[in-house]
Amino acid sequence: MKVMCSVNPGHCTLIKYIFLLLIIIHLGLNTAESVWPLPQIVIPSPERYQLKPQSFSFGYRRNLDTKHSCSVLDAAFKRYFSILFPGYTYGNDTLQLSENEVFTLTISLDHHDCQGYPNQDSSERYKLSVFAGQASLNAETVWGSLRASTGLETFSQLVYQDDFGSYYVNKTEIEDYPQFNYRGILLDTSRHYLPVQAILKTLDAMAYSKFNVFHWHLVDDPSFPYQSQKFPDLSNKGAFHPVTHIYTQSDVRRVISYARMRGIRVLPEFDSPGHTKSWGKGQSELLTSCYRGGTPSGTFGPVNPTLPSTYQFMASLLKEVASVFPDPYIHLGGDEVDFSCWRSNPYIRAFMRKMGFGLDFSKLEAFYIEKIVNITSVLRKTSIVWQDVFDYHERRKFLSVVEVWKQGCYLCEVRRVVKAGLRVILASPWYLDQPGPTHNWARYYNVWPLAFKGTEKQKSLVIGGEVCLWGEYVDATNLSPRLWPRASAAAERLWSNERQTSCVERAFPRLQEFRCKLLRRGIQAEPLYVGHCKHEYQSG
Amino acid sequence: MKVMCSVNPGHCTLIKYIFLLLIIIHLGLNTAESVWPLPQIVIPSPERYQLKPQSFSFGYRRNLDTKHSCSVLDAAFKRYFSILFPGYTYGNDTLQLSENEVFTLTISLDHHDCQGYPNQDSSERYKLSVFAGQASLNAETVWGSLRASTGLETFSQLVYQDDFGSYYVNKTEIEDYPQFNYRGILLDTSRHYLPVQAILKTLDAMAYSKFNVFHWHLVDDPSFPYQSQKFPDLSNKGAFHPVTHIYTQSDVRRVISYARMRGIRVLPEFDSPGHTKSWGKGQSELLTSCYRGGTPSGTFGPVNPTLPSTYQFMASLLKEVASVFPDPYIHLGGDEVDFSCWRSNPYIRAFMRKMGFGLDFSKLEAFYIEKIVNITSVLRKTSIVWQDVFDYHERRKFLSVVEVWKQGCYLCEVRRVVKAGLRVILASPWYLDQPGPTHNWARYYNVWPLAFKGTEKQKSLVIGGEVCLWGEYVDATNLSPRLWPRASAAAERLWSNERQTSCVERAFPRLQEFRCKLLRRGIQAEPLYVGHCKHEYQSG
Repeated sequence: MKVMCSVNPGHCTLIKYIFLLLIIIHLGLNTAESVWPLPQIVIPSPERYQLKPQSFSFGYRRNLDTKHSCSVLDAAFKRYFSILFPGYTYGNDTLQLSENEVFTLTISLDHHDCQGYPNQDSSERYKLSVFAGQASLNAETVWGSLRASTGLETFSQLVYQDDFGSYYVNKTEIEDYPQFNYRGILLDTSRHYLPVQAILKTLDAMAYSKFNVFHWHLVDDPSFPYQSQKFPDLSNKGAFHPVTHIYTQSDVRRVISYARMRGIRVLPEFDSPGHTKSWGKGQSELLTSCYRGGTPSGTFGPVNPTLPSTYQFMASLLKEVASVFPDPYIHLGGDEVDFSCWRSNPYIRAFMRKMGFGLDFSKLEAFYIEKIVNITSVLRKTSIVWQDVFDYHERRKFLSVVEVWKQGCYLCEVRRVVKAGLRVILASPWYLDQPGPTHNWARYYNVWPLAFKGTEKQKSLVIGGEVCLWGEYVDATNLSPRLWPRASAAAERLWSNERQTSCVERAFPRLQEFRCKLLRRGIQAEPLYVGHCKHEYQSG
Repeated sequence: MKVMCSVNPGHCTLIKYIFLLLIIIHLGLNTAESVWPLPQIVIPSPERYQLKPQSFSFGYRRNLDTKHSCSVLDAAFKRYFSILFPGYTYGNDTLQLSENEVFTLTISLDHHDCQGYPNQDSSERYKLSVFAGQASLNAETVWGSLRASTGLETFSQLVYQDDFGSYYVNKTEIEDYPQFNYRGILLDTSRHYLPVQAILKTLDAMAYSKFNVFHWHLVDDPSFPYQSQKFPDLSNKGAFHPVTHIYTQSDVRRVISYARMRGIRVLPEFDSPGHTKSWGKGQSELLTSCYRGGTPSGTFGPVNPTLPSTYQFMASLLKEVASVFPDPYIHLGGDEVDFSCWRSNPYIRAFMRKMGFGLDFSKLEAFYIEKIVNITSVLRKTSIVWQDVFDYHERRKFLSVVEVWKQGCYLCEVRRVVKAGLRVILASPWYLDQPGPTHNWARYYNVWPLAFKGTEKQKSLVIGGEVCLWGEYVDATNLSPRLWPRASAAAERLWSNERQTSCVERAFPRLQEFRCKLLRRGIQAEPLYVGHCKHEYQSG
């Protein structure tokens, strides 16, 4: 496999590479170097301590009033205990036999916020110190010590087994925080239905790579699997199957709760006015009737933006969505609207004339989206839209966050958006629909979202990035190997210091090691290249 | 998704397509049209019969002396019963409650050959007739009624469930036989180790698509996982791990036996003189020592063809291989030999001079392969080699079967080989390492191995084709979705009548349906495009 040097070759000199190799040879990859994504500041040490499942425990710092009360952390202790010691269960297998063998990981929080949900502003900063007999983990928030990637996850990646099966952790000091606050993965449950179990498994894997947003592209043209309380016909008639291929309210709650426990936000997307064919099956009058030769052709186009009933419906649906999904953001889509159907419809054309839009259908589009964004604002939610909305909209001030997805010079677009004072999420370089090896992990690693000319303030408007796994060719059969470990390459770009992680040659053995960890944790992560893991994936 | 018309557009007219659609609409895809690969002659009928697990049974024709004695068929009855009726077990769930509900599938064989192994000459021809209350399956050999694809498999694909869960089969008459006798899948267990379970699962899926040869590329440069009885150091030192990443003799027997039960041959490959780096670890003096500046550089090249010890070793190893693997064929590799190491070595150069080879290292290569082929002949095995051997070898008469693998005008190469009177297996167009969607199923479907100018006799030398799944980027995590259902596209090309199966538009809904059947049978087959299956794959 030919690995290229990074976009920033200055960081990847031969001398540094040799130096790194020496460290790896000396300490093995079982040190802080193997933590993925790489923490901001690491002080490693060759000094190591043995861990035993029977005498390992988690604890809260004494004065902390979270003691025995933070269910998010209690659940994480159980989960990570089984990750640290596969085959063991926390509580059942901790005996604390002898005083001098005890190892305790103690957590302290600066703020007590156990009850809420992680959000865009939650601090994920943490400090981790591993010493003889103990480790201490300090975080500003409960999400800091947990959120997708943070202290406990890092600690779990520091622990390794020798050839005889004994567990060890090296003395280590880590101070860590993410480069970007928004580190998302988009799954598309419309083009193929993904069983809830496949989504939960993805949330597990996201946490291992420190992703913190699950962008749920719930519905689209092919199917409407979201079972609405107010509009059950949307899934009754618009899902692939009204019973087996839907997400019930209980399913959705389960996904949100599972994500929350892992410090992951769930960002729902209800994309309109395009990409809505499936909506029309259960909601008559919503879509535009297309015309041919002066009469309705029987086919339908985008949402009809001329009818008041459209906005009543959208307000009602979004009100439900706003209450079901606790995240303060909603993704409204707005991409790829085909004008031909609007153009064919005499009523739409009449409306255009009345509004003074002339023949510029992007004005109609803007008219629609602005109304939907306003509905969302009234619901006290911040909207995210695909870049199309920014591109065709002349009045941009009502927009908040723009997601850049188109190929080509995507950084030019990022620059345009931040120049307009709007926040940006970058997705273009991380479309993982295309499988490897030409679209391999290095391609996704060699991306730097801030590589454009701009002020510090402008650059701070780039809030993060997102891996998109669209569903044309993806369902539960190939989701995991197509996502992992390639998405992890993007995860390091979004979490770690770019200067320390700009060279694919350096990253390669680390990512190979991390991929083996994913396998050990039951994630069907595909290989990077020739080689093996101690514990291979066992097919069922 | 844009589906192109086939290489032979005359077969895919609009009228025929509409006619086919009408049949599909009328009968649904639950008829003989949905059998994949398509049988040679099918007489379908809309008349259908209900099947009940409790009153369904398999039987032998009365006079047949195989009654109660053919273990291959008895095992197949059990297997296919659970495929026909998921959740039921043959024997436990057959009660034959009432006479008029009984449905029996009766098998008759023209030859009684239950004990042997399937081979290149085994007939796979069968006739299947489904009537009220019974089906009869006639085959020339036990491999005919079983072999990977044949009668029972076809019958299992004819059975379908209605929306209420009842099972049906339509009245049908089928006469069937394969277009090509050799329909192989290559798995590479050297670049990544594949757990035995992953191989067995692949054999299951192969049987569903009527593949009949498992080409086991056992060893190569990266690792030597085959545990030799005579040379245990080959895997002790050459495997990725001497205990967890090897195939023991018991593993190998299990694979051969599992394959045999499904009518699949196991063709072992021990590729030399190149692709042998891992061999050198456990067998000193075998590989050529490379020189730099007149002294050994410490690295090693291809097998050393100048030493008698090399041939003693190879004879001994191949003798073992010939006894472990019952198939009359052995694949000897012979591809991609790098001459630079041979060239650097003064002893090799001296040998060249002595033999009068000049500077033509392909003569040395030919010298080596000829000796190895002769060793194989003495063991009464027929050798198969990669096309390189044919290309560099001037004296070709000692060759038997050539596998064409290089890209470019592969049919030009096929033509050259058959003109030389040798048999051909075609692999070039079916390298499935590259994943979709650019390398999608249609690409593999649009291949016709006989589309070259040649006599009937020459064309008859094309004995079949092979899907190759090399292991650089493949292990148990992504093997199934990368193989299936794309390999099934090749399977239809190799089994069915090309005239009836030359149009991808026609094949598309059939393959979608077949892919759903694969999911139902637990095979992680990836989607072709947007859509759904009644039973989606449930991740663990």
